[in-house]
Amino acid sequence: MYQIDLNCDLGESFGRYTLGMDEDILPYISSANIACGYHASDPVIIEKTVQNAKANNVHIGAHTGFPDLLGFGRRNMSLSFEEARTYTMYQMGALKGFCLAAGIPLYHVKPHGAFYNMAAQDYKLSCAICEGIASIDSNVILLGLSNSQMEKAAKMVGITFKQEIFADRAYEDDGSLVPRSRPGAVIEEEEVAISRVIDMIKKGKVKSIHGREIEIKADSVCVHGDGEKALEFVKMIHRTLKEEGIGIKAF
Amino acid sequence: MYQIDLNCDLGESFGRYTLGMDEDILPYISSANIACGYHASDPVIIEKTVQNAKANNVHIGAHTGFPDLLGFGRRNMSLSFEEARTYTMYQMGALKGFCLAAGIPLYHVKPHGAFYNMAAQDYKLSCAICEGIASIDSNVILLGLSNSQMEKAAKMVGITFKQEIFADRAYEDDGSLVPRSRPGAVIEEEEVAISRVIDMIKKGKVKSIHGREIEIKADSVCVHGDGEKALEFVKMIHRTLKEEGIGIKAF
Amino acid sequence: MYQIDLNCDLGESFGRYTLGMDEDILPYISSANIACGYHASDPVIIEKTVQNAKANNVHIGAHTGFPDLLGFGRRNMSLSFEEARTYTMYQMGALKGFCLAAGIPLYHVKPHGAFYNMAAQDYKLSCAICEGIASIDSNVILLGLSNSQMEKAAKMVGITFKQEIFADRAYEDDGSLVPRSRPGAVIEEEEVAISRVIDMIKKGKVKSIHGREIEIKADSVCVHGDGEKALEFVKMIHRTLKEEGIGIKAF
Amino acid sequence: MYQIDLNCDLGESFGRYTLGMDEDILPYISSANIACGYHASDPVIIEKTVQNAKANNVHIGAHTGFPDLLGFGRRNMSLSFEEARTYTMYQMGALKGFCLAAGIPLYHVKPHGAFYNMAAQDYKLSCAICEGIASIDSNVILLGLSNSQMEKAAKMVGITFKQEIFADRAYEDDGSLVPRSRPGAVIEEEEVAISRVIDMIKKGKVKSIHGREIEIKADSVCVHGDGEKALEFVKMIHRTLKEEGIGIKAF
Repeated sequence: MYQIDLNCDLGESFGRYTLGMDEDILPYISSANIACGYHASDPVIIEKTVQNAKANNVHIGAHTGFPDLLGFGRRNMSLSFEEARTYTMYQMGALKGFCLAAGIPLYHVKPHGAFYNMAAQDYKLSCAICEGIASIDSNVILLGLSNSQMEKAAKMVGITFKQEIFADRAYEDDGSLVPRSRPGAVIEEEEVAISRVIDMIKKGKVKSIHGREIEIKADSVCVHGDGEKALEFVKMIHRTLKEEGIGIKAF
Repeated sequence: MYQIDLNCDLGESFGRYTLGMDEDILPYISSANIACGYHASDPVIIEKTVQNAKANNVHIGAHTGFPDLLGFGRRNMSLSFEEARTYTMYQMGALKGFCLAAGIPLYHVKPHGAFYNMAAQDYKLSCAICEGIASIDSNVILLGLSNSQMEKAAKMVGITFKQEIFADRAYEDDGSLVPRSRPGAVIEEEEVAISRVIDMIKKGKVKSIHGREIEIKADSVCVHGDGEKALEFVKMIHRTLKEEGIGIKAF
Repeated sequence: MYQIDLNCDLGESFGRYTLGMDEDILPYISSANIACGYHASDPVIIEKTVQNAKANNVHIGAHTGFPDLLGFGRRNMSLSFEEARTYTMYQMGALKGFCLAAGIPLYHVKPHGAFYNMAAQDYKLSCAICEGIASIDSNVILLGLSNSQMEKAAKMVGITFKQEIFADRAYEDDGSLVPRSRPGAVIEEEEVAISRVIDMIKKGKVKSIHGREIEIKADSVCVHGDGEKALEFVKMIHRTLKEEGIGIKAF
Repeated sequence: MYQIDLNCDLGESFGRYTLGMDEDILPYISSANIACGYHASDPVIIEKTVQNAKANNVHIGAHTGFPDLLGFGRRNMSLSFEEARTYTMYQMGALKGFCLAAGIPLYHVKPHGAFYNMAAQDYKLSCAICEGIASIDSNVILLGLSNSQMEKAAKMVGITFKQEIFADRAYEDDGSLVPRSRPGAVIEEEEVAISRVIDMIKKGKVKSIHGREIEIKADSVCVHGDGEKALEFVKMIHRTLKEEGIGIKAF
């Protein structure tokens, strides 16, 4: 039987500020990437999000970000190897404390925003992240971009790598994402997007932006919960996957 | 044989800013309270401090502070119960991650500055701290002020409480500290201070500011490492304790 | 002819986080208290808010808060006199820069949240705020709570004080606010609230919670823009004031 | 008569953390670049530094940095045009408030660390800085790197540009700095460094790293105050300039 993980970024509120529809989306996903207080979130929100995820049997991962609350972790920052490694450890440890308190494991780490994008293209930065993860718990999985430096680094450091796909994004012939700045980078039609996801899961293949059929292994599909439209899409993908006999299950 | 713990606040540097003589003082103490990134410290410094403490066989505790880097955690802040509890968890978890990586336990929590002083007088705040600790690891000890609300709360929540004494401070008849604002609150002569510490350890007694002999149980002596003079005092107390046949050992 | 100022807190978004319905409420108010980056806001938001206020002919004031983004400036913090004074100057200066760029004056300062509430009861803290204001521009007005320590301090320091009233709050016999924790502190019925405001403006009088008619001078009415309901109330009060022949005008 | 400005970064302490020997160096310089609370400093320190500079007749400029206290503004960050422009305005405004209070002008802006280095090579980023400056006060000078994008941007935006030279750095044939990573980038011998400075001032020329005599216009020499050795060098350069009949004077 086919199965796939649906992951979503959660716990991105901060103090008085609310972001995302966390409680609405939890029933439809299998993994939650929880912000750890660097690019978003705070201890009160982390605890609540961990407990909500637990109540929905959703696996928890650390959504590790740059120390840039003002930029929501979306701005490139040049960290040293040591900084990238220890910032990963700090955030992972902080979240793990709340998991311990809830009696559940910390399953994975998924870098956030600019940290994710920079790591995908920077082997050294990816190694720093992987070493940070491995130093705390080598069973924790790195969830990252398919065919990126993250995968290479995880292999080298010796931790498990799981790759996520994006339902609404076009791929190059080499399996990398078409940059958002290029025409055709974003798949606008939801039905098309979902049917591509199903192909990736069932056949391990998808058509590239140049029309070639390429191989792609999907461990997880990244979905969003930051608006009514995003929520509707998650419900639709959830329903379609069920109809197609694809189980939704954390890795 | 008599024995006592010597604890010191460490890892209080931040980014480009250096504070304290951490490496110089580590050989003379048995417990280190390491700042966790709220009132001071950052992940690079935490890791380094954890490793230095380990290399010196010094036990590690979390020095949990208010989220007030600008005020170094020394300004009173009114936190809700939930905030005080989860801020404790967050900081404790973050530090525990580095301890895990170093393969050593996290032994205790000692609140910092205004968090410590407010908790000492506020039973509810102390309960919030103790519940935060217990939720992550009920074997972790609360290190706090003798005869304070912290002790009462630790008992109620069911975690171990160890009490620290201050070599250079005068005590009231009821065992509480004489406020710094009052004349005679600080013991200026170092020999007097040390001889008082020895009495507290060996006899469990000390003379109050009003001249009465009061009972006081010393689990740990708080020393400082933020200057040459402080360092000299630590060396002196270390030497004198050895001469008196008192072992220096973490609880 | 009667007239009154309507003031509202604006520019409280932060980075990726949006708060308030600033653009909707601007047409109905005469003064905007703009957050300055301590309890909320950032430079991009400040600039945008200043320009929107200017476009609506709304006077600008600095909404100075505690350096506590995580607590949205709503948690009591014990600042020294020097800190309270210079934090006021810093925030006021930062906002004034954007006013200079927009070619409009900075008219007033209104402390935010816990800073406001603490200052209302603390003469020294109020003096620190007033001295901070006066040192930069002694023509800038302090907007604060009627019958509070703020008024006393402004007089002493020599800056103009304008007092705001709250449409939905009950008053004690001495003109101070009934604490929210007490029954009857909040006026639930909107028509009653508005009719009380009109009495305060036209007669300079209002009925206290104990049924006594007390004198109260209203320079400004504080309204809120953080939700649909709040916005509806502002529209209602705006309309009713016009119908009553009361001009809405900044002081 | 020849004259030159000596500028130094000041006010880089933060809360409990002390950095630099501000009071020792003030008598030897003519311009102070004061940190504005983004990469370093806080309102209490800003006020004190402004007053000390005033007491020494030293001109004040805003040392505008990235919002990265943890990295001391030394890490590259990708800001949008709007962010770079408004962050400049915010910091400049905040400092200008303290200048107003002290009754002295704000003379210049000098970006700090990574903000400086990135702007030097990025015309758009430099334009954002210059537009921010000009929007608040078009008489404020941009102090920056010779032969860099900063100069080009200042010209375009219409503000005055003054260029600083570095006594201890080698130059390329085109007048740009030899990157620190390259051998020979740093002039180790102090006498050589000073004699180069004198040549730049008197002849407007210096020998490039490739041995060619190149033209360079020196408006200001950047000196440092973050250690005994740095302080000694400042004293030496101050003394030698006087002996050479070169006046030390802010532009």
